[in-house]
Amino acid sequence: MSAQRADLSRCSLNTATVKHASLPEAVQAAAAAGMGAVGLWRHQVAEHGAETARAIVEDAGLTVSSLCRGGFLTAATDEGVRDAIAENTRAIEEAAGVGTRELVFVVGGLPGSSPEAPPAPGTDRDVVAARARVADRLADLAPIAAEHDVRIVLEPLHPMFAADRAVISTLGQALDLSAPFDARTVGVVVDTYHVWWDPELRGSIERAGREGRIASYQVCDWNLPFGATALNSRGHVGDGYIDFATISSWVRDAGYTGDVETEIFNEGIWAADPVKTARTVAERYAEHVAPHL
Amino acid sequence: MSAQRADLSRCSLNTATVKHASLPEAVQAAAAAGMGAVGLWRHQVAEHGAETARAIVEDAGLTVSSLCRGGFLTAATDEGVRDAIAENTRAIEEAAGVGTRELVFVVGGLPGSSPEAPPAPGTDRDVVAARARVADRLADLAPIAAEHDVRIVLEPLHPMFAADRAVISTLGQALDLSAPFDARTVGVVVDTYHVWWDPELRGSIERAGREGRIASYQVCDWNLPFGATALNSRGHVGDGYIDFATISSWVRDAGYTGDVETEIFNEGIWAADPVKTARTVAERYAEHVAPHL
Repeated sequence: MSAQRADLSRCSLNTATVKHASLPEAVQAAAAAGMGAVGLWRHQVAEHGAETARAIVEDAGLTVSSLCRGGFLTAATDEGVRDAIAENTRAIEEAAGVGTRELVFVVGGLPGSSPEAPPAPGTDRDVVAARARVADRLADLAPIAAEHDVRIVLEPLHPMFAADRAVISTLGQALDLSAPFDARTVGVVVDTYHVWWDPELRGSIERAGREGRIASYQVCDWNLPFGATALNSRGHVGDGYIDFATISSWVRDAGYTGDVETEIFNEGIWAADPVKTARTVAERYAEHVAPHL
Repeated sequence: MSAQRADLSRCSLNTATVKHASLPEAVQAAAAAGMGAVGLWRHQVAEHGAETARAIVEDAGLTVSSLCRGGFLTAATDEGVRDAIAENTRAIEEAAGVGTRELVFVVGGLPGSSPEAPPAPGTDRDVVAARARVADRLADLAPIAAEHDVRIVLEPLHPMFAADRAVISTLGQALDLSAPFDARTVGVVVDTYHVWWDPELRGSIERAGREGRIASYQVCDWNLPFGATALNSRGHVGDGYIDFATISSWVRDAGYTGDVETEIFNEGIWAADPVKTARTVAERYAEHVAPHL
Protein backbone atom coordinates (compact mmCIF):
# COMPACT_ATOMS: atom_id res chain seq x y z
CA MET A 1 0.00 0.00 0.00
CA SER A 2 1.44 3.39 -0.86
CA ALA A 3 1.37 6.16 1.72
CA GLN A 4 -0.36 8.37 -0.86
CA ARG A 5 -3.49 6.25 -0.89
CA ALA A 6 -3.57 5.44 2.82
CA ASP A 7 -5.42 7.42 5.46
CA LEU A 8 -2.62 9.18 7.32
CA SER A 9 -4.83 11.32 9.52
CA ARG A 10 -3.79 9.36 12.62
CA CYS A 11 -0.14 9.16 11.59
CA SER A 12 2.07 11.45 13.67
CA LEU A 13 5.74 12.29 13.39
CA ASN A 14 7.43 12.55 16.75
CA THR A 15 10.00 15.21 16.09
CA ALA A 16 12.74 13.21 17.85
CA THR A 17 12.73 11.08 14.69
CA VAL A 18 14.08 14.08 12.77
CA LYS A 19 16.17 15.35 15.65
CA HIS A 20 18.29 17.80 13.68
CA ALA A 21 15.37 19.52 11.94
CA SER A 22 14.01 22.79 13.29
CA LEU A 23 10.39 22.78 14.44
CA PRO A 24 9.15 24.41 11.21
CA GLU A 25 11.20 21.93 9.14
CA ALA A 26 9.86 18.96 11.07
CA VAL A 27 6.29 20.19 10.77
CA GLN A 28 6.67 20.80 7.04
CA ALA A 29 8.15 17.33 6.55
CA ALA A 30 5.20 15.75 8.38
CA ALA A 31 2.71 17.83 6.39
CA ALA A 32 4.42 17.05 3.09
CA ALA A 33 4.20 13.33 3.87
CA GLY A 34 0.45 13.73 4.42
CA MET A 35 0.41 13.13 8.17
CA GLY A 36 -2.16 14.52 10.53
CA ALA A 37 -0.07 15.31 13.59
CA VAL A 38 3.32 15.80 15.19
CA GLY A 39 4.63 14.91 18.64
CA LEU A 40 6.73 17.72 20.12
CA TRP A 41 9.54 18.00 22.63
CA ARG A 42 9.83 20.63 25.32
CA HIS A 43 13.07 22.14 24.04
CA GLN A 44 11.28 23.07 20.81
CA VAL A 45 8.42 24.64 22.68
CA ALA A 46 10.91 26.56 24.81
CA GLU A 47 12.73 27.80 21.72
CA HIS A 48 9.66 29.30 20.11
CA GLY A 49 7.33 29.80 23.05
CA ALA A 50 4.20 27.65 23.38
CA GLU A 51 1.94 30.03 21.45
CA THR A 52 4.24 30.26 18.43
CA ALA A 53 5.01 26.54 18.45
CA ARG A 54 1.29 25.82 18.45
CA ALA A 55 0.76 28.23 15.55
CA ILE A 56 3.56 26.60 13.52
CA VAL A 57 1.79 23.25 13.85
CA GLU A 58 -1.76 24.52 13.32
CA ASP A 59 -0.83 26.71 10.35
CA ALA A 60 0.41 23.56 8.61
CA GLY A 61 -2.96 21.93 9.22
CA LEU A 62 -1.63 19.53 11.82
CA THR A 63 -2.37 18.87 15.48
CA VAL A 64 -0.04 18.15 18.40
CA SER A 65 -0.41 14.50 19.39
CA SER A 66 1.72 14.73 22.54
CA LEU A 67 4.45 16.63 24.31
CA CYS A 68 7.63 14.90 25.45
CA ARG A 69 8.50 14.94 28.26
CA GLY A 70 8.00 15.34 31.92
CA GLY A 71 9.06 12.94 34.60
CA PHE A 72 12.32 12.26 36.43
CA LEU A 73 10.51 11.67 39.68
CA THR A 74 12.85 9.36 41.57
CA ALA A 75 14.93 11.85 43.57
CA ALA A 76 15.13 11.02 47.27
CA THR A 77 16.18 14.42 48.61
CA ASP A 78 13.86 17.27 49.59
CA GLU A 79 15.52 19.48 47.03
CA GLY A 80 15.15 16.85 44.31
CA VAL A 81 11.48 16.45 45.11
CA ARG A 82 10.87 20.20 45.01
CA ASP A 83 12.72 20.47 41.70
CA ALA A 84 10.72 17.62 40.17
CA ILE A 85 7.41 19.21 41.15
CA ALA A 86 8.45 22.63 39.86
CA GLU A 87 9.81 21.33 36.57
CA ASN A 88 6.82 19.13 35.90
CA THR A 89 4.43 21.95 36.72
CA ARG A 90 6.13 23.95 33.96
CA ALA A 91 5.85 20.96 31.61
CA ILE A 92 2.12 20.67 32.35
CA GLU A 93 1.64 24.36 31.59
CA GLU A 94 3.56 23.98 28.33
CA ALA A 95 1.46 21.02 27.23
CA ALA A 96 -1.69 23.05 27.76
CA GLY A 97 -0.11 26.01 25.99
CA VAL A 98 0.95 24.05 22.93
CA GLY A 99 -2.46 22.45 22.56
CA THR A 100 -2.18 18.85 23.67
CA ARG A 101 -3.66 16.98 26.60
CA GLU A 102 -0.99 14.27 26.51
CA LEU A 103 2.27 14.92 28.39
CA VAL A 104 4.58 11.90 28.21
CA PHE A 105 6.49 11.10 31.42
CA VAL A 106 9.80 9.25 31.52
CA VAL A 107 10.00 8.71 35.26
CA GLY A 108 13.75 8.45 35.73
CA GLY A 109 16.15 5.75 36.92
CA LEU A 110 17.98 5.09 40.17
CA PRO A 111 19.10 8.35 41.80
CA GLY A 112 22.69 9.08 40.84
CA SER A 113 22.67 6.61 37.94
CA SER A 114 24.16 7.35 34.55
CA PRO A 115 23.86 5.55 31.21
CA GLU A 116 27.50 6.34 30.62
CA ALA A 117 29.09 5.32 33.91
CA PRO A 118 29.28 2.70 36.62
CA PRO A 119 27.57 3.57 39.91
CA ALA A 120 29.22 6.39 41.83
CA PRO A 121 30.04 5.63 45.48
CA GLY A 122 26.87 5.79 47.52
CA THR A 123 24.55 5.18 44.56
CA ASP A 124 21.09 4.21 45.73
CA ARG A 125 20.33 0.79 44.23
CA ASP A 126 16.91 0.37 45.84
CA VAL A 127 14.64 0.17 42.82
CA VAL A 128 11.65 -0.74 44.99
CA ALA A 129 11.98 2.53 46.91
CA ALA A 130 12.54 4.51 43.70
CA ARG A 131 9.29 3.13 42.35
CA ALA A 132 7.47 4.09 45.54
CA ARG A 133 8.72 7.66 45.14
CA VAL A 134 7.29 7.76 41.62
CA ALA A 135 3.89 6.97 43.13
CA ASP A 136 4.35 9.77 45.67
CA ARG A 137 5.25 12.33 43.02
CA LEU A 138 2.26 11.33 40.88
CA ALA A 139 0.06 12.10 43.86
CA ASP A 140 1.71 15.53 44.06
CA LEU A 141 1.38 16.25 40.35
CA ALA A 142 -1.99 14.77 39.40
CA PRO A 143 -4.02 17.68 40.86
CA ILE A 144 -1.83 20.16 38.97
CA ALA A 145 -2.32 18.24 35.72
CA ALA A 146 -6.08 18.05 36.31
CA GLU A 147 -6.23 21.77 36.90
CA HIS A 148 -4.68 22.37 33.46
CA ASP A 149 -6.74 19.62 31.78
CA VAL A 150 -3.52 17.82 30.90
CA ARG A 151 -2.90 14.07 31.23
CA ILE A 152 0.29 12.66 32.72
CA VAL A 153 1.16 9.82 30.34
CA LEU A 154 3.39 7.22 31.98
CA GLU A 155 5.83 5.59 29.58
CA PRO A 156 7.14 2.17 30.50
CA LEU A 157 10.65 2.02 29.11
CA HIS A 158 12.35 -1.19 28.03
CA PRO A 159 13.86 -2.96 31.07
CA MET A 160 17.33 -2.31 29.68
CA PHE A 161 16.77 1.31 30.79
CA ALA A 162 15.54 0.49 34.30
CA ALA A 163 18.77 1.52 36.03
CA ASP A 164 19.43 4.79 34.28
CA ARG A 165 16.25 6.14 32.66
CA ALA A 166 12.95 4.78 33.89
CA VAL A 167 12.03 2.50 36.76
CA ILE A 168 8.67 1.85 35.07
CA SER A 169 9.43 -1.25 33.02
CA THR A 170 6.09 -2.76 32.02
CA LEU A 171 2.69 -1.56 30.91
CA GLY A 172 1.11 -3.42 33.82
CA GLN A 173 3.29 -1.53 36.28
CA ALA A 174 2.38 1.78 34.62
CA LEU A 175 -1.29 0.88 34.98
CA ASP A 176 -0.83 -0.01 38.65
CA LEU A 177 0.79 3.37 39.23
CA SER A 178 -2.07 5.07 37.32
CA ALA A 179 -4.79 3.27 39.24
CA PRO A 180 -5.27 5.82 42.07
CA PHE A 181 -6.00 8.60 39.59
CA ASP A 182 -8.74 9.53 37.14
CA ALA A 183 -8.06 8.17 33.66
CA ARG A 184 -8.30 11.68 32.23
CA THR A 185 -5.44 12.75 34.49
CA VAL A 186 -3.00 9.81 34.43
CA GLY A 187 -2.66 7.49 31.45
CA VAL A 188 -0.10 5.35 29.65
CA VAL A 189 1.64 5.17 26.31
CA VAL A 190 2.08 1.91 24.45
CA ASP A 191 5.46 2.17 22.71
CA THR A 192 6.21 -0.95 20.71
CA TYR A 193 9.97 -0.64 21.19
CA HIS A 194 9.66 -0.73 24.95
CA VAL A 195 6.90 -3.29 25.47
CA TRP A 196 6.86 -5.70 22.51
CA TRP A 197 8.64 -8.47 24.46
CA ASP A 198 6.23 -8.50 27.41
CA PRO A 199 4.45 -11.85 27.85
CA GLU A 200 1.62 -9.95 29.59
CA LEU A 201 1.31 -7.36 26.82
CA ARG A 202 -2.01 -8.40 25.38
CA GLY A 203 -3.70 -8.45 28.78
CA SER A 204 -2.14 -5.16 29.78
CA ILE A 205 -3.29 -3.43 26.57
CA GLU A 206 -6.80 -4.80 27.12
CA ARG A 207 -6.74 -3.49 30.70
CA ALA A 208 -5.42 -0.10 29.55
CA GLY A 209 -8.27 0.16 27.07
CA ARG A 210 -10.88 -0.95 29.61
CA GLU A 211 -9.63 1.69 32.03
CA GLY A 212 -9.58 4.40 29.34
CA ARG A 213 -5.89 5.06 29.85
CA ILE A 214 -4.29 4.59 26.41
CA ALA A 215 -3.12 8.13 25.74
CA SER A 216 -0.72 7.36 22.91
CA TYR A 217 0.44 4.55 20.66
CA GLN A 218 4.06 4.96 19.59
CA VAL A 219 5.80 2.76 17.06
CA CYS A 220 9.32 1.99 16.02
CA ASP A 221 11.16 -1.27 15.50
CA TRP A 222 13.56 -3.43 17.51
CA ASN A 223 16.69 -3.58 15.40
CA LEU A 224 19.62 -5.94 15.77
CA PRO A 225 22.51 -5.75 16.16
CA PHE A 226 22.45 -2.91 18.69
CA GLY A 227 24.10 0.30 17.57
CA ALA A 228 26.97 1.85 19.47
CA THR A 229 24.42 3.32 21.87
CA ALA A 230 21.62 0.97 22.85
CA LEU A 231 19.22 3.89 23.30
CA ASN A 232 19.66 4.85 19.66
CA SER A 233 19.26 1.41 18.09
CA ARG A 234 15.64 1.81 17.08
CA GLY A 235 14.59 1.36 13.50
CA HIS A 236 11.95 2.24 10.97
CA VAL A 237 8.82 0.14 11.36
CA GLY A 238 9.36 -3.05 9.37
CA ASP A 239 13.14 -3.13 9.60
CA GLY A 240 13.32 -5.10 12.85
CA TYR A 241 11.77 -7.92 14.84
CA ILE A 242 8.49 -6.46 16.10
CA ASP A 243 5.13 -7.92 15.05
CA PHE A 244 3.25 -4.68 14.34
CA ALA A 245 0.19 -6.43 12.94
CA THR A 246 -0.47 -8.22 16.20
CA ILE A 247 0.29 -5.37 18.60
CA SER A 248 -1.62 -2.83 16.49
CA SER A 249 -4.65 -5.11 16.45
CA TRP A 250 -4.51 -5.40 20.25
CA VAL A 251 -4.39 -1.61 20.55
CA ARG A 252 -7.32 -1.32 18.11
CA ASP A 253 -9.33 -3.95 19.99
CA ALA A 254 -8.69 -2.03 23.20
CA GLY A 255 -10.65 0.82 21.65
CA TYR A 256 -7.81 3.23 20.92
CA THR A 257 -8.73 5.70 18.20
CA GLY A 258 -6.02 8.35 18.70
CA ASP A 259 -2.85 9.24 16.90
CA VAL A 260 -0.01 6.84 16.20
CA GLU A 261 3.37 8.47 16.69
CA THR A 262 6.53 7.19 15.11
CA GLU A 263 9.41 7.97 17.44
CA ILE A 264 12.82 6.66 16.38
CA PHE A 265 16.17 7.30 18.04
CA ASN A 266 18.79 6.33 15.48
CA GLU A 267 21.95 8.18 14.44
CA GLY A 268 21.61 7.06 10.83
CA ILE A 269 18.02 8.24 10.55
CA TRP A 270 18.92 11.52 12.25
CA ALA A 271 21.54 12.08 9.54
CA ALA A 272 19.00 11.59 6.75
CA ASP A 273 16.89 14.27 5.02
CA PRO A 274 13.87 14.95 7.28
CA VAL A 275 11.51 15.09 4.32
CA LYS A 276 12.62 11.64 3.17
CA THR A 277 12.46 10.31 6.72
CA ALA A 278 8.89 11.56 7.14
CA ARG A 279 7.93 9.95 3.83
CA THR A 280 9.42 6.63 4.95
CA VAL A 281 7.60 6.90 8.28
CA ALA A 282 4.32 7.45 6.42
CA GLU A 283 4.94 4.54 4.06
CA ARG A 284 5.82 2.14 6.85
CA TYR A 285 2.81 3.25 8.87
CA ALA A 286 0.60 2.67 5.84
CA GLU A 287 2.09 -0.76 5.20
CA HIS A 288 2.58 -2.23 8.68
CA VAL A 289 0.31 -0.38 11.10
CA ALA A 290 -2.73 1.25 9.45
CA PRO A 291 -4.23 -1.99 8.07
CA HIS A 292 -4.45 -3.36 11.63
CA LEU A 293 -5.90 -0.29 13.35
CA MET B 1 34.28 -9.47 55.07
CA SER B 2 37.17 -11.36 53.48
CA ALA B 3 36.44 -14.39 51.35
CA GLN B 4 38.86 -16.37 53.53
CA ARG B 5 36.62 -16.13 56.59
CA ALA B 6 33.29 -16.50 54.81
CA ASP B 7 31.44 -19.75 54.23
CA LEU B 8 31.93 -20.38 50.53
CA SER B 9 30.39 -23.84 50.47
CA ARG B 10 27.41 -22.54 48.44
CA CYS B 11 29.56 -20.34 46.21
CA SER B 12 29.90 -21.74 42.70
CA LEU B 13 31.96 -20.59 39.76
CA ASN B 14 30.11 -20.89 36.48
CA THR B 15 32.92 -21.70 34.10
CA ALA B 16 31.66 -19.18 31.52
CA THR B 17 33.09 -16.56 33.88
CA VAL B 18 36.58 -17.89 33.08
CA LYS B 19 35.74 -18.68 29.49
CA HIS B 20 39.30 -19.19 28.26
CA ALA B 21 40.36 -21.56 31.06
CA SER B 22 40.34 -25.30 30.47
CA LEU B 23 38.02 -27.34 32.67
CA PRO B 24 40.85 -28.43 35.01
CA GLU B 25 42.09 -24.83 35.23
CA ALA B 26 38.61 -23.51 36.01
CA VAL B 27 38.03 -26.18 38.64
CA GLN B 28 41.40 -25.50 40.27
CA ALA B 29 40.68 -21.76 40.30
CA ALA B 30 37.34 -22.36 42.04
CA ALA B 31 38.92 -24.74 44.53
CA ALA B 32 41.81 -22.37 45.25
CA ALA B 33 39.31 -19.61 46.00
CA GLY B 34 37.61 -21.89 48.50
CA MET B 35 34.37 -22.44 46.63
CA GLY B 36 32.18 -25.50 46.94
CA ALA B 37 30.98 -25.95 43.37
CA VAL B 38 31.29 -25.18 39.69
CA GLY B 39 28.67 -24.72 36.99
CA LEU B 40 29.68 -26.42 33.75
CA TRP B 41 28.95 -25.98 30.06
CA ARG B 42 28.23 -28.77 27.61
CA HIS B 43 31.22 -28.12 25.37
CA GLN B 44 33.50 -28.88 28.33
CA VAL B 45 31.69 -32.07 29.09
CA ALA B 46 31.91 -33.04 25.45
CA GLU B 47 35.63 -32.36 25.40
CA HIS B 48 36.42 -34.66 28.31
CA GLY B 49 33.44 -36.99 28.37
CA ALA B 50 30.94 -36.81 31.21
CA GLU B 51 32.70 -39.34 33.42
CA THR B 52 36.09 -37.62 33.24
CA ALA B 53 34.57 -34.16 33.62
CA ARG B 54 32.77 -35.34 36.72
CA ALA B 55 35.99 -36.83 38.12
CA ILE B 56 37.89 -33.58 37.50
CA VAL B 57 35.34 -31.74 39.60
CA GLU B 58 34.99 -34.34 42.34
CA ASP B 59 38.72 -34.93 42.68
CA ALA B 60 39.04 -31.23 43.53
CA GLY B 61 36.48 -31.68 46.30
CA LEU B 62 33.78 -29.75 44.43
CA THR B 63 30.33 -30.55 43.15
CA VAL B 64 28.59 -29.61 39.89
CA SER B 65 25.91 -27.01 40.63
CA SER B 66 24.40 -27.03 37.13
CA LEU B 67 24.98 -27.77 33.48
CA CYS B 68 24.51 -25.11 30.79
CA ARG B 69 22.68 -25.46 28.54
CA GLY B 70 19.80 -27.07 26.81
CA GLY B 71 16.96 -25.29 25.13
CA PHE B 72 16.47 -23.64 21.73
CA LEU B 73 12.93 -24.89 21.49
CA THR B 74 11.26 -22.36 19.22
CA ALA B 75 11.71 -23.98 15.81
CA ALA B 76 8.50 -24.18 13.81
CA THR B 77 9.49 -26.89 11.31
CA ASP B 78 9.18 -30.64 11.82
CA GLU B 79 12.92 -30.98 11.34
CA GLY B 80 13.63 -28.24 13.86
CA VAL B 81 11.35 -29.89 16.39
CA ARG B 82 13.01 -33.29 15.91
CA ASP B 83 16.48 -31.72 16.25
CA ALA B 84 15.50 -29.89 19.43
CA ILE B 85 14.21 -33.07 21.04
CA ALA B 86 17.27 -35.07 20.02
CA GLU B 87 19.76 -32.43 21.14
CA ASN B 88 18.05 -31.87 24.47
CA THR B 89 17.83 -35.58 25.10
CA ARG B 90 21.62 -35.68 24.79
CA ALA B 91 21.91 -32.69 27.13
CA ILE B 92 19.72 -34.45 29.72
CA GLU B 93 21.93 -37.54 29.52
CA GLU B 94 25.04 -35.42 29.93
CA ALA B 95 23.65 -33.66 33.00
CA ALA B 96 22.98 -37.02 34.62
CA GLY B 97 26.41 -38.24 33.57
CA VAL B 98 28.26 -35.27 34.99
CA GLY B 99 26.45 -35.47 38.30
CA THR B 100 23.95 -32.64 38.43
CA ARG B 101 20.16 -32.61 38.44
CA GLU B 102 19.98 -29.03 37.15
CA LEU B 103 20.11 -28.51 33.38
CA VAL B 104 19.71 -24.84 32.47
CA PHE B 105 17.57 -24.13 29.40
CA VAL B 106 17.88 -21.01 27.26
CA VAL B 107 14.77 -21.46 25.17
CA GLY B 108 15.74 -19.57 22.02
CA GLY B 109 14.46 -16.50 20.22
CA LEU B 110 12.32 -15.95 17.15
CA PRO B 111 13.06 -18.56 14.47
CA GLY B 112 15.57 -17.16 12.00
CA SER B 113 16.64 -14.34 14.31
CA SER B 114 20.24 -13.32 14.84
CA PRO B 115 21.85 -11.06 17.43
CA GLU B 116 24.11 -9.78 14.69
CA ALA B 117 21.68 -9.11 11.89
CA PRO B 118 18.37 -7.56 10.93
CA PRO B 119 15.56 -9.99 10.19
CA ALA B 120 16.05 -12.05 7.06
CA PRO B 121 13.16 -12.03 4.59
CA GLY B 122 10.42 -14.25 5.89
CA THR B 123 11.51 -14.04 9.52
CA ASP B 124 8.76 -15.22 11.84
CA ARG B 125 8.01 -12.32 14.21
CA ASP B 126 5.19 -14.07 16.08
CA VAL B 127 6.55 -14.19 19.62
CA VAL B 128 3.24 -15.46 20.99
CA ALA B 129 3.44 -18.53 18.76
CA ALA B 130 7.13 -19.05 19.59
CA ARG B 131 6.25 -19.11 23.28
CA ALA B 132 3.50 -21.64 22.64
CA ARG B 133 6.03 -23.90 20.91
CA VAL B 134 8.27 -23.72 23.98
CA ALA B 135 5.37 -25.11 26.01
CA ASP B 136 4.89 -27.91 23.46
CA ARG B 137 8.58 -28.88 23.56
CA LEU B 138 8.60 -28.91 27.35
CA ALA B 139 5.76 -31.43 27.21
CA ASP B 140 7.91 -33.54 24.87
CA LEU B 141 11.04 -33.30 27.01
CA ALA B 142 9.75 -33.44 30.58
CA PRO B 143 9.20 -37.23 30.56
CA ILE B 144 12.74 -37.72 29.24
CA ALA B 145 14.17 -35.48 31.96
CA ALA B 146 12.14 -37.29 34.63
CA GLU B 147 13.41 -40.63 33.40
CA HIS B 148 17.00 -39.44 33.95
CA ASP B 149 16.19 -37.69 37.26
CA VAL B 150 17.27 -34.40 35.71
CA ARG B 151 15.46 -31.08 36.06
CA ILE B 152 14.86 -28.77 33.11
CA VAL B 153 15.69 -25.34 34.53
CA LEU B 154 14.03 -22.53 32.58
CA GLU B 155 16.08 -19.36 32.46
CA PRO B 156 14.23 -16.11 31.85
CA LEU B 157 16.61 -13.91 29.91
CA HIS B 158 16.60 -10.14 30.05
CA PRO B 159 13.95 -8.75 27.66
CA MET B 160 16.70 -7.24 25.53
CA PHE B 161 17.35 -10.83 24.37
CA ALA B 162 13.73 -11.69 23.59
CA ALA B 163 14.14 -11.46 19.82
CA ASP B 164 17.35 -13.39 19.39
CA ARG B 165 18.02 -15.62 22.41
CA ALA B 166 15.10 -16.41 24.68
CA VAL B 167 11.40 -15.74 24.41
CA ILE B 168 11.10 -16.36 28.16
CA SER B 169 11.50 -12.85 29.56
CA THR B 170 10.24 -12.93 33.15
CA LEU B 171 10.35 -15.28 36.10
CA GLY B 172 6.56 -15.27 36.22
CA GLN B 173 6.39 -16.46 32.63
CA ALA B 174 8.94 -19.21 33.38
CA LEU B 175 6.78 -20.34 36.29
CA ASP B 176 3.66 -20.35 34.11
CA LEU B 177 5.47 -22.56 31.61
CA SER B 178 6.66 -24.83 34.43
CA ALA B 179 3.22 -25.17 35.99
CA PRO B 180 2.05 -28.28 34.09
CA PHE B 181 5.06 -30.29 35.31
CA ASP B 182 6.34 -31.72 38.55
CA ALA B 183 8.68 -29.31 40.35
CA ARG B 184 11.40 -31.96 40.37
CA THR B 185 11.27 -32.08 36.57
CA VAL B 186 10.85 -28.44 35.50
CA GLY B 187 12.20 -25.54 37.56
CA VAL B 188 13.58 -22.04 37.14
CA VAL B 189 16.80 -20.15 37.69
CA VAL B 190 16.85 -16.71 39.26
CA ASP B 191 19.66 -14.82 37.51
CA THR B 192 20.02 -11.31 38.89
CA TYR B 193 21.27 -9.88 35.59
CA HIS B 194 18.17 -10.98 33.77
CA VAL B 195 15.45 -10.32 36.33
CA TRP B 196 16.58 -7.52 38.68
CA TRP B 197 14.43 -4.89 36.94
CA ASP B 198 11.14 -6.83 37.18
CA PRO B 199 8.48 -5.01 39.22
CA GLU B 200 6.94 -8.43 39.95
CA LEU B 201 10.22 -10.00 41.06
CA ARG B 202 9.54 -10.36 44.76
CA GLY B 203 6.20 -12.04 44.18
CA SER B 204 7.60 -14.30 41.49
CA ILE B 205 10.49 -15.42 43.73
CA GLU B 206 8.03 -16.13 46.55
CA ARG B 207 5.90 -18.16 44.15
CA ALA B 208 8.92 -20.05 42.83
CA GLY B 209 9.88 -20.95 46.38
CA ARG B 210 6.36 -21.98 47.31
CA GLU B 211 6.21 -24.22 44.25
CA GLY B 212 9.65 -25.73 44.98
CA ARG B 213 11.01 -24.65 41.62
CA ILE B 214 14.09 -22.54 42.41
CA ALA B 215 16.79 -24.73 40.92
CA SER B 216 19.59 -22.18 40.84
CA TYR B 217 20.46 -18.68 41.95
CA GLN B 218 22.90 -16.97 39.60
CA VAL B 219 24.52 -13.62 40.24
CA CYS B 220 26.35 -10.98 38.27
CA ASP B 221 25.89 -7.24 38.02
CA TRP B 222 24.22 -4.84 35.60
CA ASN B 223 27.03 -2.62 34.36
CA LEU B 224 26.75 0.67 32.49
CA PRO B 225 27.68 1.79 29.96
CA PHE B 226 27.04 -1.28 27.85
CA GLY B 227 30.10 -2.89 26.30
CA ALA B 228 30.49 -3.28 22.56
CA THR B 229 28.31 -6.39 22.82
CA ALA B 230 25.31 -6.06 25.11
CA LEU B 231 25.44 -9.76 25.93
CA ASN B 232 28.94 -9.35 27.37
CA SER B 233 28.35 -6.25 29.48
CA ARG B 234 27.89 -8.07 32.78
CA GLY B 235 30.07 -7.23 35.73
CA HIS B 236 31.44 -8.57 38.97
CA VAL B 237 28.90 -8.42 41.77
CA GLY B 238 29.13 -4.98 43.35
CA ASP B 239 30.39 -3.14 40.26
CA GLY B 240 26.98 -2.30 38.85
CA TYR B 241 23.46 -1.22 39.70
CA ILE B 242 21.88 -4.36 41.18
CA ASP B 243 20.67 -4.49 44.79
CA PHE B 244 22.05 -7.91 45.78
CA ALA B 245 21.11 -7.55 49.44
CA THR B 246 17.42 -7.27 48.62
CA ILE B 247 17.22 -9.91 45.90
CA SER B 248 19.33 -12.38 47.90
CA SER B 249 17.08 -11.94 50.92
CA TRP B 250 14.04 -12.66 48.76
CA VAL B 251 15.67 -15.83 47.46
CA ARG B 252 16.57 -16.84 51.04
CA ASP B 253 13.05 -16.12 52.28
CA ALA B 254 11.70 -18.29 49.46
CA GLY B 255 13.54 -21.18 51.09
CA TYR B 256 16.37 -21.62 48.62
CA THR B 257 19.36 -23.37 50.18
CA GLY B 258 21.28 -24.42 47.09
CA ASP B 259 24.38 -23.14 45.35
CA VAL B 260 24.87 -19.58 44.16
CA GLU B 261 26.59 -19.43 40.80
CA THR B 262 28.46 -16.42 39.56
CA GLU B 263 28.15 -16.31 35.78
CA ILE B 264 29.68 -13.28 34.06
CA PHE B 265 30.01 -12.65 30.32
CA ASN B 266 32.57 -9.88 29.98
CA GLU B 267 35.52 -9.61 27.59
CA GLY B 268 37.68 -7.87 30.17
CA ILE B 269 37.05 -10.51 32.83
CA TRP B 270 37.65 -13.26 30.27
CA ALA B 271 41.07 -11.74 29.57
CA ALA B 272 42.04 -11.80 33.28
CA ASP B 273 43.85 -14.56 35.17
CA PRO B 274 41.22 -17.20 36.08
CA VAL B 275 42.68 -17.65 39.56
CA LYS B 276 42.36 -13.95 40.28
CA THR B 277 38.87 -13.87 38.77
CA ALA B 278 37.75 -16.75 40.99
CA ARG B 279 39.18 -14.97 44.03
CA THR B 280 37.28 -11.79 43.14
CA VAL B 281 34.09 -13.80 42.62
CA ALA B 282 34.52 -15.34 46.08
CA GLU B 283 35.22 -11.98 47.71
CA ARG B 284 32.22 -10.32 46.11
CA TYR B 285 30.01 -13.25 47.04
CA ALA B 286 31.22 -13.01 50.63
CA GLU B 287 30.64 -9.26 50.76
CA HIS B 288 27.42 -8.74 48.81
CA VAL B 289 25.52 -12.03 48.75
CA ALA B 290 26.40 -14.41 51.60
CA PRO B 291 25.33 -12.05 54.42
CA HIS B 292 21.80 -12.00 52.99
CA LEU B 293 21.35 -15.71 52.34
